[in-house]
Amino acid sequence: MALIVQKFGGSSVADAEGIKRVAKRIVQTKKAGNDVVVVVSAMGDTTDDLIDLAHSVTPTPSGREMDMLLTAGERISMSLLAMAIISLGVEARSFTGSQAGLVTDAIHGNASIVDVTPKRVFKAIEEGAIAIVAGFQGFNRGTGDITTLGRGGSDTTAVALAAAMHADVCEIYTDVDGVFTADPRVVPTAHKLDFITSEEMLELASSGAKVLYIRAVEFARRHHVALHVRSSFSSKQGTIVAETRAEARRLRRAVDLNRAAPAVDPAQKEEDTVEAPVITGVATDKNEAKITVIGVPDTIGRAAQLFNLVAGEGTSIDMIVQNVSAAATGLTDISFTLPTGDGPRVVAALNRHKADLGFDSVVYDDQIAKLAIVGAGMRTHPGVSARFFSALAEQGINIEMISTSDIRISVVTRLDSLDEAVRAVHTAFGLDADGEAVVYGGTGR
Amino acid sequence: MALIVQKFGGSSVADAEGIKRVAKRIVQTKKAGNDVVVVVSAMGDTTDDLIDLAHSVTPTPSGREMDMLLTAGERISMSLLAMAIISLGVEARSFTGSQAGLVTDAIHGNASIVDVTPKRVFKAIEEGAIAIVAGFQGFNRGTGDITTLGRGGSDTTAVALAAAMHADVCEIYTDVDGVFTADPRVVPTAHKLDFITSEEMLELASSGAKVLYIRAVEFARRHHVALHVRSSFSSKQGTIVAETRAEARRLRRAVDLNRAAPAVDPAQKEEDTVEAPVITGVATDKNEAKITVIGVPDTIGRAAQLFNLVAGEGTSIDMIVQNVSAAATGLTDISFTLPTGDGPRVVAALNRHKADLGFDSVVYDDQIAKLAIVGAGMRTHPGVSARFFSALAEQGINIEMISTSDIRISVVTRLDSLDEAVRAVHTAFGLDADGEAVVYGGTGR
Repeated sequence: MALIVQKFGGSSVADAEGIKRVAKRIVQTKKAGNDVVVVVSAMGDTTDDLIDLAHSVTPTPSGREMDMLLTAGERISMSLLAMAIISLGVEARSFTGSQAGLVTDAIHGNASIVDVTPKRVFKAIEEGAIAIVAGFQGFNRGTGDITTLGRGGSDTTAVALAAAMHADVCEIYTDVDGVFTADPRVVPTAHKLDFITSEEMLELASSGAKVLYIRAVEFARRHHVALHVRSSFSSKQGTIVAETRAEARRLRRAVDLNRAAPAVDPAQKEEDTVEAPVITGVATDKNEAKITVIGVPDTIGRAAQLFNLVAGEGTSIDMIVQNVSAAATGLTDISFTLPTGDGPRVVAALNRHKADLGFDSVVYDDQIAKLAIVGAGMRTHPGVSARFFSALAEQGINIEMISTSDIRISVVTRLDSLDEAVRAVHTAFGLDADGEAVVYGGTGR
Repeated sequence: MALIVQKFGGSSVADAEGIKRVAKRIVQTKKAGNDVVVVVSAMGDTTDDLIDLAHSVTPTPSGREMDMLLTAGERISMSLLAMAIISLGVEARSFTGSQAGLVTDAIHGNASIVDVTPKRVFKAIEEGAIAIVAGFQGFNRGTGDITTLGRGGSDTTAVALAAAMHADVCEIYTDVDGVFTADPRVVPTAHKLDFITSEEMLELASSGAKVLYIRAVEFARRHHVALHVRSSFSSKQGTIVAETRAEARRLRRAVDLNRAAPAVDPAQKEEDTVEAPVITGVATDKNEAKITVIGVPDTIGRAAQLFNLVAGEGTSIDMIVQNVSAAATGLTDISFTLPTGDGPRVVAALNRHKADLGFDSVVYDDQIAKLAIVGAGMRTHPGVSARFFSALAEQGINIEMISTSDIRISVVTRLDSLDEAVRAVHTAFGLDADGEAVVYGGTGR
């Protein structure tokens, strides 16, 4: 018997029909002999509706009260889901974040989980019931106040519960079949991945892939929780996210049979490097802008001064490029990318401090986009960047900035050439699904 | 400085405008130098909407989950109200039933308060904040589960908090100006009462007056909590409900000045009997039906057998009349009233047991209504029933059943003559408001 944590998002439980459908699915997992803990988000647009309601009362709602308000959303979905399960003849009990022992710090609206003490959840499943836990919410021990976890909070709740309860797998149900090699709306030949390592998933999520939240993936990785990203609209196997490809494969078989995972087979570990594809997926991000500060004096500490100023505006910058300074003038240009929404604020701040920083001018450009290729295979396969840049060059796509990690290469291109770029790269790395062409690095292509 | 508990019902906080209006009112009370604890119901039709939602998922929702679901309603209203107050520059904190220490038994949907430990509420007001408490909800210590108090639960929450915190007064805000001598929609000459004893209020509420719930009045009476029933749409003084008329008057002056109540003046106690009106108010109930069981053998224990059967159907019967049995046959007729909604079920149950009970037939009549006059003055003024029955007789209104208590006389009449009856009685006891004609017993009329 396996212990399975299942997380259903707001679109899966948007109405009574959705709730009944999800209830049936949960009961199937239970009847297959598993212990089941379910984490559920608020129904459909409930959270947005509650936010609107708050803003109709005051433009600046108190953080504590906003959390109190928003947590009503999961309270509604979780109790309805429990009712639906009970009406199918299976015992179920819903628990709020505090009842389930989700202890957080006291940062209202964006709390972090500091402890999980799911005593009542354990008791419920020991007594044969399905436990339904409110996603997105917790409480602070010091104040006794209710908190929320911020964006992607329900994914994080599910992963945290799976870690604390040593669940066999944490299933994240969504409206797509799993993690794809690229966004299928842009790349029609994109295909679903059966496995992906948590490291790769983290890079993809950080590079703009929307299927999982970075925080939840980080939490899963840190606490060795295997994720299974799958569709709530079909019973197809989705994508397993685990520390190693071998572990993912082992888990997949276990989950297929709906039983606990067997011990790792050492022979499979061997395969790992052989079968690893060079590139696992391509991610894109259209919500970034580029700021170039022109004519910055190339003196020690000047860049630090500039980025301290930018950090003070509460934005998170991503890629940074500094030109080699012209010997004649001792001046350099510094470019960086940041979320488009923060652009105008940061430009204004830079201009206010133009005199202190001593630069010439600021150029703002929101017609850029980011494209990243991610794959653990990069570590063992040389020539990846050459193939990447060639593919872009063949389409006449200009690269404006480059950054890399161990298993990722990101570039900045023009926004209007992004879709073309991602299709070209997807093809160049043999990711196109034609004839099930999942191309592995071992083939030498 | 007084400690005032204010309760606002769902119609007062039905939308953002209502919430802002109520927030201003609460802040006024606070700024007048009082400590304020607010109990709030769910917004407008929220509770009914949530019940509908539950029934769209399953026709028979689990009691535990229904309570979890419904308590989302006050969570929304209380957090919005707290936000609105905070945006007026006054500190406020909302608390769920469990956070406010409302401990109940484990009867889901109709829990009773067994203890109130409002530690966090005390702390909030000590720190200068306004405490906003969710009405209608509590939790059970044994199971840790959330419970709801059933109909009128928010009134009961307010009274229970006022009792536990030794509040000076518990203000119940409603959409009418206070407690009236009769329903003003039926009796245009009805007038608002400045005072009413809790005993009278209890009889009125039990006889169909809707302004306060019986449970809350009982709780207030048992715990010596003074109530002030008033309109949330005006700042007029409403009706004070207290143990004695003198106590009510003393409190009224205290509340007028927004300060703590002074000690009782013994001289006022004297006035009490002098000024007490014979009749305080007239209540009506159109939601009752009458069942007559014809030809019941008049043997010992037969009535008990019959009423045990009726009680088994979960209905609460009110008036009972048993005819003198005919000597020749040894048979009698038994009539009783019960809520109309329970009528068909009870008739069916009686007919199923016709053989055991040995009666001839059952007559069901849902075209009846109940009319009650209530007044502590009855105790000292003879001739009240004579005047009551004469007033009805003069209008040609037939009385079908009669029951009495110490301070109440109730009759059953035809439903279609009820409105005429209540107006006639209202006039006969000098309750008509013409020329501020509050007629007291002492005048001898």
